[in-house]
Amino acid sequence: MKTLVLKISGKFVSPYDTPLVEGYAKTLEALRRKYKLAVVVGGGSVARKYIELAPPSKGLKDLIGIEVSRLNALLLSMHTPSAKKVIPKSASEVLELWDGEDILIVGGLQPGQSTNAVALVVAELVGADLVVNATTVDAVYDKPPSQPGAKRIEKIKARELQRLLESFDWKNEPGRYELMDSIALQIAERSKIPIAVIYGGEPERIPSIVEEEAWGTLILP
Amino acid sequence: MKTLVLKISGKFVSPYDTPLVEGYAKTLEALRRKYKLAVVVGGGSVARKYIELAPPSKGLKDLIGIEVSRLNALLLSMHTPSAKKVIPKSASEVLELWDGEDILIVGGLQPGQSTNAVALVVAELVGADLVVNATTVDAVYDKPPSQPGAKRIEKIKARELQRLLESFDWKNEPGRYELMDSIALQIAERSKIPIAVIYGGEPERIPSIVEEEAWGTLILP
Amino acid sequence: MKTLVLKISGKFVSPYDTPLVEGYAKTLEALRRKYKLAVVVGGGSVARKYIELAPPSKGLKDLIGIEVSRLNALLLSMHTPSAKKVIPKSASEVLELWDGEDILIVGGLQPGQSTNAVALVVAELVGADLVVNATTVDAVYDKPPSQPGAKRIEKIKARELQRLLESFDWKNEPGRYELMDSIALQIAERSKIPIAVIYGGEPERIPSIVEEEAWGTLILP
Amino acid sequence: MKTLVLKISGKFVSPYDTPLVEGYAKTLEALRRKYKLAVVVGGGSVARKYIELAPPSKGLKDLIGIEVSRLNALLLSMHTPSAKKVIPKSASEVLELWDGEDILIVGGLQPGQSTNAVALVVAELVGADLVVNATTVDAVYDKPPSQPGAKRIEKIKARELQRLLESFDWKNEPGRYELMDSIALQIAERSKIPIAVIYGGEPERIPSIVEEEAWGTLILP
Amino acid sequence: MKTLVLKISGKFVSPYDTPLVEGYAKTLEALRRKYKLAVVVGGGSVARKYIELAPPSKGLKDLIGIEVSRLNALLLSMHTPSAKKVIPKSASEVLELWDGEDILIVGGLQPGQSTNAVALVVAELVGADLVVNATTVDAVYDKPPSQPGAKRIEKIKARELQRLLESFDWKNEPGRYELMDSIALQIAERSKIPIAVIYGGEPERIPSIVEEEAWGTLILP
Amino acid sequence: MKTLVLKISGKFVSPYDTPLVEGYAKTLEALRRKYKLAVVVGGGSVARKYIELAPPSKGLKDLIGIEVSRLNALLLSMHTPSAKKVIPKSASEVLELWDGEDILIVGGLQPGQSTNAVALVVAELVGADLVVNATTVDAVYDKPPSQPGAKRIEKIKARELQRLLESFDWKNEPGRYELMDSIALQIAERSKIPIAVIYGGEPERIPSIVEEEAWGTLILP
Repeated sequence: MKTLVLKISGKFVSPYDTPLVEGYAKTLEALRRKYKLAVVVGGGSVARKYIELAPPSKGLKDLIGIEVSRLNALLLSMHTPSAKKVIPKSASEVLELWDGEDILIVGGLQPGQSTNAVALVVAELVGADLVVNATTVDAVYDKPPSQPGAKRIEKIKARELQRLLESFDWKNEPGRYELMDSIALQIAERSKIPIAVIYGGEPERIPSIVEEEAWGTLILP
Repeated sequence: MKTLVLKISGKFVSPYDTPLVEGYAKTLEALRRKYKLAVVVGGGSVARKYIELAPPSKGLKDLIGIEVSRLNALLLSMHTPSAKKVIPKSASEVLELWDGEDILIVGGLQPGQSTNAVALVVAELVGADLVVNATTVDAVYDKPPSQPGAKRIEKIKARELQRLLESFDWKNEPGRYELMDSIALQIAERSKIPIAVIYGGEPERIPSIVEEEAWGTLILP
Repeated sequence: MKTLVLKISGKFVSPYDTPLVEGYAKTLEALRRKYKLAVVVGGGSVARKYIELAPPSKGLKDLIGIEVSRLNALLLSMHTPSAKKVIPKSASEVLELWDGEDILIVGGLQPGQSTNAVALVVAELVGADLVVNATTVDAVYDKPPSQPGAKRIEKIKARELQRLLESFDWKNEPGRYELMDSIALQIAERSKIPIAVIYGGEPERIPSIVEEEAWGTLILP
Repeated sequence: MKTLVLKISGKFVSPYDTPLVEGYAKTLEALRRKYKLAVVVGGGSVARKYIELAPPSKGLKDLIGIEVSRLNALLLSMHTPSAKKVIPKSASEVLELWDGEDILIVGGLQPGQSTNAVALVVAELVGADLVVNATTVDAVYDKPPSQPGAKRIEKIKARELQRLLESFDWKNEPGRYELMDSIALQIAERSKIPIAVIYGGEPERIPSIVEEEAWGTLILP
Repeated sequence: MKTLVLKISGKFVSPYDTPLVEGYAKTLEALRRKYKLAVVVGGGSVARKYIELAPPSKGLKDLIGIEVSRLNALLLSMHTPSAKKVIPKSASEVLELWDGEDILIVGGLQPGQSTNAVALVVAELVGADLVVNATTVDAVYDKPPSQPGAKRIEKIKARELQRLLESFDWKNEPGRYELMDSIALQIAERSKIPIAVIYGGEPERIPSIVEEEAWGTLILP
Repeated sequence: MKTLVLKISGKFVSPYDTPLVEGYAKTLEALRRKYKLAVVVGGGSVARKYIELAPPSKGLKDLIGIEVSRLNALLLSMHTPSAKKVIPKSASEVLELWDGEDILIVGGLQPGQSTNAVALVVAELVGADLVVNATTVDAVYDKPPSQPGAKRIEKIKARELQRLLESFDWKNEPGRYELMDSIALQIAERSKIPIAVIYGGEPERIPSIVEEEAWGTLILP
């Protein structure tokens, strides 16, 4: 049985956004019938609100954002019978809790990185064959999708994507991590873990997307 | 030195409400110069939003609400240099962490009760002389303040208040705990802990309110 | 498969009382073949002895009583192969440890309430269909069974029972919690969990009592 | 400031024996004014009762006995303002919690040894100058004190005592550990830690006994 | 299904020695198909190096040696799919983690004893039928094997071995624990657990050695 | 009082290298008299040995390397009276344990990054004014110091250094992290934390180096 890590944007779990918690719970149960499954959940807009209220230190802002992502992870686990109800707080705990049977749902781990990086850290630890990043855009584009003429990229090497994102003067701020931060791409590259970017707004379609490998963009290590 | 427990409504800490986090941080540091201080923080509207998204079980709804209150407690601790940065998850941990020097900030503890009950559980464990409940109303009234002709009650016995609240057909639902639930009043009564109800919307006034004992209502054990 | 919570009076587990530990271990294994099973154990007379030795604070007295109930829970788990050997210390840990396969045995959780309240908190969290309270009396009576003319109550609504117990000027003291404290009845009512009261002195009869629903009293939400 | 480890027989703390909890709390506070202080508490007769009820495995019997000793340690800590309220569960936790300021109270650590052995393990970790063993006899005798003609031994080398106790066909059973088990004497010898044996039934006298070094027996490394 | 505890000398796991980690991982998986299996791993020469660097206190030296043995246990667990990835830090945690299905790998537990003692503590707790000690010698000899004329002992009673080792003026120093320390033999004797000593340098042969009971020496309780 | 984070290369703590543990312990105590002090320790060659023995997964290799760095952190804490003896395992635990009084010593936190990154994560969380990186080279050079004509760089901007290291085709492998990985430089830049690179082989000189700001290279945010 293959091992899959599904990264879910916080916007699809946390309130005040477009929470699709029950939809995603069904998706996880469906995926689990075919894959060993670990899930990483982001913070969403609630995280940004708490980040705004946190003291100026970016470390503390990231840490409160991480706690919101763990709250989202717990919320999703409550809806998912096959998921453990313990949300790991460190890489060591991910290894301790992962048994390849229960679904393990993880929030953030450490300031200075996004939950995308967590997805790759988890993927490396559980020996995942693939990371699926269900996010708010449907693919990677040659420039920010909001700009006219942005073209979808079907396949791209991790290093190429890194340079592309650097050209966007990509941000590394609490709550403002762009599509993929460098540590995520470095881990993907060194451990040969492909990352499939798909639109996360329709969780019920994800099992078939994965089945048919109908990716928006495939980031190759 | 006397020991004080300050209960703060979640509405004055959590985002999407009227967060007065920095104001309250200053208030806690001021109070701590005169009292040994423990603080209990509620969930606020973010808690209600997560409660809505949680599965139907009221136990799970309360538990996700409790996690939000702990998030608020962590946020407040980040702004308060003299506060421990560990938020206890059980009554045993309250005893383990309380040293009478650092400010201990606590969120919820258990489904089926409000953070008001937690304030009295903590008060009993740390041997508090008084619980100050900084809430969204300025006092206890002889009927819900929203109703015309509601009169402010200056002093009331815990048992009397219990019967009064029962007459309001007081709710005991996740995120909808009224002013004081029965376990709070029972503990106040059995351990002779007075509860002062004040308006929590002006944290900078709380140190003087406490100094002058200018309570909205004093609930006597 | 239905989910059952069995509350066992501490008197049937702790030494110096009438410990029926091995009998109850067999009962748990029998029940577990038909139900998902969580168990809550009380403190018994050892708890009262430690409570007497604890400092005057009722919070500390309750907490040492809670530790004795956890000792009883560990003792029972040692005799019960299908039981986890970790005794949860908070509602969050109950959720984390509950997997619906192993038997989860819980002691007290928080001062100001009895282990009866814990039984309902656990029942709500694990989605129990029924709480069976194996206690030292065989049913609820219209007045304390020790008084002449006390009549057994077959069925009673939670709210009615609450008023009945209030009329007994029911105690809420460490080690002296009466049949059912208010938080237990409130949770039973709000989450529609029936409570069956039976005599706990013959553990070997409990599986058939449950099978035949031969309750002393059934408390309806 | 010297460092002292005081071992207190469970019989002077646990109920059903001759609990002198408040007396010992005062003694600890008095000793702490002159020494850095760690304390180890035994199980007492409550431990033996639980040991009788535990399954046949001597490992499980020891473990339930250890939990009772931790209960006694928590009870004593509740009466002792300067004591930490966390009871360590392993040697690693003793090192983590020891700060040389708060009094650290420890129960048992591991099956197969007595809390006397724990006293020497703790003494070695905190760099103690002396272990005082406040026990139910006032000294070591050349044969079990119950036998006629038993003579008190003022001073004895650890290795000599080991051979003496072996000649008593000394037991190593759960709840039945004799005066000193071999691991205690080995650690005392290798780390040059003297052990003073005194009668523990008069805690109020212990500060002066320590001051005047009025030992029943002094076991030299 | 019988329960087996395999003690592996640190020299066969830790670097700078003759690490046979993958060999032992296969051995554990093979043994687990026939036995419920717990494993205890020693420190090896890396432990001795850290012990040399630790402060003079023998308690601290033992504790850093214990941490190295836990590092070896984690390393071995990483190679062993059926092994839990949590390394227990106390006897209580051994009981909590042991489920008779996953392989539980343990390092040291407490200063003043060797990991041989831990093997017997674990054996007693999990109800083992046998402890197999895979060490650097192939058997127990009537005198240190390095001395000429040392004869292999096929079978020996625990108490006899204890006296024999005492005659070697057996050491009890951090990192220098001889073949069997007294607490190991005491537990073996009291709980009737035989200990089979075999050469641990050929892990692939261990399953058949165990099958054929081709021990170097069998220590009988 | 300013806050300082001192990063120490594992080579100066772990055995088999040039351990200067006692020297560094004195340095930490000296620094602590002038600064609030957190310390991060690397893995050293012992880490590399364990990494070689770990399974192929780079996540697991990093994790065993992290455990060795924690072993080094514990070893150093044992020699440093003012250091906490608890080594945090996550960013959340760093915040919980940091009190600005005791020295906090940290090992690695997460796969995919070096302990240099940890130094900046910790620096951000504790609000450090400066990170001092005591490493095996005395400064940053315009090309690997081993190459002829390499010129020492006195001052460099974080972004410039990032591009410089990328030009060296800098590695990001377990145990082979170069001078500074990208996450370290990103955090330094976003939170305006300067990093001073000095030679770590003479710990006794570090207090004066810091006093006189006699850096090998100063990396400016």
